[in-house]
Amino acid sequence: MNIIKTEKAYISSFASVVGSLESKGPLGTLFDIAKDGDDRFGKETWEKSEAEMQRLALTTALDKASLCDTDIDLMLAGDLINQCISSANGLIDFDIPFLGVFGACSTCAESILLSSVFSSFAEKCCAAVTSSHNCSVERQFRFPVEYASLRTPTSQWTVTGAGAYIISPKNTANAPAVTEVLAGKCIDGGITDACNMGAAMAPACADTVERYFEESALTPDSFDYIVTGDLGKEGSSILNELLAKSGIDISKNHRDCGTDIYSLDAQDVHSGGSGCGCSASVIAAKYLSKVAKGEISDMLFIGTGALMNTMSVQQGNSIPGVAHLVRITKTR
Amino acid sequence: MNIIKTEKAYISSFASVVGSLESKGPLGTLFDIAKDGDDRFGKETWEKSEAEMQRLALTTALDKASLCDTDIDLMLAGDLINQCISSANGLIDFDIPFLGVFGACSTCAESILLSSVFSSFAEKCCAAVTSSHNCSVERQFRFPVEYASLRTPTSQWTVTGAGAYIISPKNTANAPAVTEVLAGKCIDGGITDACNMGAAMAPACADTVERYFEESALTPDSFDYIVTGDLGKEGSSILNELLAKSGIDISKNHRDCGTDIYSLDAQDVHSGGSGCGCSASVIAAKYLSKVAKGEISDMLFIGTGALMNTMSVQQGNSIPGVAHLVRITKTR
Repeated sequence: MNIIKTEKAYISSFASVVGSLESKGPLGTLFDIAKDGDDRFGKETWEKSEAEMQRLALTTALDKASLCDTDIDLMLAGDLINQCISSANGLIDFDIPFLGVFGACSTCAESILLSSVFSSFAEKCCAAVTSSHNCSVERQFRFPVEYASLRTPTSQWTVTGAGAYIISPKNTANAPAVTEVLAGKCIDGGITDACNMGAAMAPACADTVERYFEESALTPDSFDYIVTGDLGKEGSSILNELLAKSGIDISKNHRDCGTDIYSLDAQDVHSGGSGCGCSASVIAAKYLSKVAKGEISDMLFIGTGALMNTMSVQQGNSIPGVAHLVRITKTR
Repeated sequence: MNIIKTEKAYISSFASVVGSLESKGPLGTLFDIAKDGDDRFGKETWEKSEAEMQRLALTTALDKASLCDTDIDLMLAGDLINQCISSANGLIDFDIPFLGVFGACSTCAESILLSSVFSSFAEKCCAAVTSSHNCSVERQFRFPVEYASLRTPTSQWTVTGAGAYIISPKNTANAPAVTEVLAGKCIDGGITDACNMGAAMAPACADTVERYFEESALTPDSFDYIVTGDLGKEGSSILNELLAKSGIDISKNHRDCGTDIYSLDAQDVHSGGSGCGCSASVIAAKYLSKVAKGEISDMLFIGTGALMNTMSVQQGNSIPGVAHLVRITKTR
């Protein structure tokens, strides 16, 4: 019994910020802020650029709902940079209590999950904020992008993007509701290749999806979409295979934020997008706006993360995955 | 209005694990597991040693209350190592959903805070687990300990320690209750010296304490102890000065986990202990056992963290602090 029913959690506002490559992708026109430039966001280091994206995302989400700092009781935020400094530095100018979270690329789902529990219990308005930046992340985990290293076919492209979500205990203006949440388990599938995150995360995603359908007694047909973020092409294929073995067929309504955000071949991103900012920007831009309009009635968002750092890979450890689920339902 | 009253959150079991230097300190006999050896905990890398301490801490906390994996619905855990891998790797063998949190040295307080909200709302048993290891942390943030670098007078000694707390919605055997929680704000006091964490964290701690007393209308005399973790000697002195300016005198009942855990001069640890594992082990070993026995009626634990990484310091950024508060009360 692990699904938690969150009865007072409405996503009353949401905003997305992306960089240049993302603005040229298939969702380019849907983001609130899509920069077509050098992805520096006016800052002198990539780390500060990423922090600035978090600030812009939360500012935009607050502005869209005519809210200010005093309307928000708590921020939950995280990112991929060591010790989550993009979040701390990006959000420090807001006069709002701050809790850092870390779930690698599942951080967006994790922060929405925690915000929804807070909102339901404590009747607090929470802000969930997440980001990643291609240049800060690639330098930290692999190589500085200036090296122009060759990338393997299964590698994913870290998204330059950020998303902010305001979770409120009260419904206003047909806000999408978070009605259920389910935290994932760490699952180690034995993958040691840091350029194949999809394969590392797919087993954890399959575990969460199986647990959800078993406990809820629902089927994939109950949902308009089952959206993972971010398995990419490789990980999505593995997920579908793993679930098929358990008799669960999600092939009709499965989407993945990592394959949504880019034109995979035309934009040369190999297996698709990844990074905390991928699902953070895609869920806001592509999916939540449709839930708010009533075009999507019911969907599952399963954020997936690969729990590793550069040293754990160098020491030969395998890469465990984790996947957190939130159910999002229209309220009109 | 930011204090959250948690009505169903009892710390039904807790356990502490420490290394060699800590076992020789003034609290040496109080820890559940105190290793007097090479601090490797049987593993070949410092990162794996730290992960093993998390595993030992949670195993011990479960054993002390005759609990098993199926009794725990959720683990919230974090540490100082990049991407919190000590938590993910240390807890992967438990068949329990996992949420990663990051608050630097405030992570223990943050994970207890979040567990208490979950427990009160979702009626879930949660485990809050935190660790640090002197050798893994010093290599990552400063220098490998084998270099025997000179340390500045204000520097703190990263504790080799871990703590695990089982937070239950039901009271059994006079378990200490978490009755209130208050999340802290990121506060930047302008400190850029990575060897003076106490000064970086003290302003955030003062802010949280001031907000708590203002909203609760209580005074420091209402509590047996006001325990910070971990400001050290330097940070504690700054905290007392800052609070005195606001007319709050905590000097009589203030204690700090960083000065509790070592004999500061005799053990040559300069300003005292720090690291996620410092408050995690000290709160369990020194304070909670006294609350459980009724020797402490009411206390505040304010976990303090410095939000930085090596690159942010190299880029000249100042170091923001954050401080989260939990109120712990006897139930007998």
